Amino acid sequence: MKLALIGYGNVGRAFGRLIERKRASFPFRIVGIHTLRHGTAIDPGGLAPEPVFGPPAASVDEFLDRTGAEVMIEVTPLNPATGEPAISHIRAAFARSMHVITANKGPIAHAYHNLRDEAAQAGVQFCFESTVMDGAPVFNLVNFALPGVEINGFTGVLNSTSKIVVEAMREGCSMEEGIERARQMGIAETDPSFDIDGWDSAAKTAALANVLLDARTTPQQVETKGIGRLTTARVCELAAEGKTVRLVSRAKRTPSGVRLRVRAEMLDETDLLASAHGTSNLLLFHTDLMGTVGTVSLDPTVEQTAYGLFSDLVNVARTV
Amino acid sequence: MKLALIGYGNVGRAFGRLIERKRASFPFRIVGIHTLRHGTAIDPGGLAPEPVFGPPAASVDEFLDRTGAEVMIEVTPLNPATGEPAISHIRAAFARSMHVITANKGPIAHAYHNLRDEAAQAGVQFCFESTVMDGAPVFNLVNFALPGVEINGFTGVLNSTSKIVVEAMREGCSMEEGIERARQMGIAETDPSFDIDGWDSAAKTAALANVLLDARTTPQQVETKGIGRLTTARVCELAAEGKTVRLVSRAKRTPSGVRLRVRAEMLDETDLLASAHGTSNLLLFHTDLMGTVGTVSLDPTVEQTAYGLFSDLVNVARTV
Repeated sequence: MKLALIGYGNVGRAFGRLIERKRASFPFRIVGIHTLRHGTAIDPGGLAPEPVFGPPAASVDEFLDRTGAEVMIEVTPLNPATGEPAISHIRAAFARSMHVITANKGPIAHAYHNLRDEAAQAGVQFCFESTVMDGAPVFNLVNFALPGVEINGFTGVLNSTSKIVVEAMREGCSMEEGIERARQMGIAETDPSFDIDGWDSAAKTAALANVLLDARTTPQQVETKGIGRLTTARVCELAAEGKTVRLVSRAKRTPSGVRLRVRAEMLDETDLLASAHGTSNLLLFHTDLMGTVGTVSLDPTVEQTAYGLFSDLVNVARTV
Repeated sequence: MKLALIGYGNVGRAFGRLIERKRASFPFRIVGIHTLRHGTAIDPGGLAPEPVFGPPAASVDEFLDRTGAEVMIEVTPLNPATGEPAISHIRAAFARSMHVITANKGPIAHAYHNLRDEAAQAGVQFCFESTVMDGAPVFNLVNFALPGVEINGFTGVLNSTSKIVVEAMREGCSMEEGIERARQMGIAETDPSFDIDGWDSAAKTAALANVLLDARTTPQQVETKGIGRLTTARVCELAAEGKTVRLVSRAKRTPSGVRLRVRAEMLDETDLLASAHGTSNLLLFHTDLMGTVGTVSLDPTVEQTAYGLFSDLVNVARTV
């Protein structure tokens, strides 16, 4: 199966390594990579592990045409305000009857229903497991392992940077020092205010709500209050009382529609939601038949995001 | 799809209610129930929600023959020492080309590989999602939502009664009072020493290891040390230090085979493994591609065990 990547940052490179490692059992081949920064690399026979980039293709459309790929992998950075240009990339692939797998939550947070319908019309698959909780089963869990279940809401601790920042502040660091720590770990968004002000969590919350609760919402419509006003003194005061702070995403079906909220919440340290430390994430689904059940992912890295893309790819390959 | 139940305790009755509730979207029909205590009820047109039992069938074989069912649902109580008579029930169904769904972990802990091979030979399906963590996705999670992943080990907090007992002891109760509390909640095994001495956890650990790690083991081969020697004074002393006790199941692939252990472990109260309270359960998989990822189930009841049977049934119906 021939793959074309748009974007080639940390996730794209980890995905390339994973494809290489699993080549014996899964015959996937990266035949093209298109980036703004490095240019474009294309080889219909399969690119080398360290591809050589030439000048950029004139457009994403031209790039996709030249690759002849069957699956497009979208791994450009998040634009939480609009979801572009990833949404346009995805449409360009649909127009060429290519399946699409994305790790970019923007399109799911902003345009899920349209893209889902357009994929169905084009007769291709549209997968996005890596958009929330890296590669941990979230959408695939609900789709494949909870048959017959209706999701009525969810509660999640989904942003890593804010956890790293709060944990640094507990040690007496300033918020800026905490952000710097997250940046050095390579997990902060390019603009860390996306994490601190709750935009990253709002985008994940909107994406989850669109897919699982049929919410037709956007990140802007999520009532969001980040950790920006938290002080080191307050965090230490809370720690002395056995409490801590987490940026918590909450969603709930109500008779008047889906209610969505991201807020810095004060929690007992022994609370399950507080027990996801560092980059660990936790997401609980509130369901009709299976009570409250969830996924937890411990200390994920970019390798796990790459696995999420891979798991989608295996599912696409199985059903094609 | 016609179903025959062996056993009709709390789980069987909850399953009956669930089938009734979902009849509009899932056309499953219970045509026979066989129990030691109540006798046998059979109606090929579908039993009423409150079935009337007649004298017991002469044998499970005769019962199954008379039902003409396509799926047998095994919900008899656990015998952790041998897995019988559930194993024989399952074989009787295979001999009649019936699919089998069981909530009884005994057969999986004692005879998984043989039963799996016998099911394949009979051309039927053999499902057991409810045997560990009630109905929360465990086996189905690995099978359907973690494609291409190898499980290298697991860590779980899987026994509810021991958690209820420890939590009661923290409040100053004796162990016996804690057991009584679990019994009143309807969660203790018929013989609560199965919970306290770690047999229930050992059976779950063996079942998980047989299926996920190809371990070919039995509960007796799991190195097990329960909470039997714990005193109220010690639990309170630990609480004062911010610590608690959980019965933890651990498994790990090693070059010399799979290492399995169930032990009462002392944990920080803020530890993720300690944060599963009451009947809540937590299971972490250690994997090659997806790091450490897991399932958490909050306050499950018998309704969730019934859902596990139902989810297996939906999967069987999909592929038949």
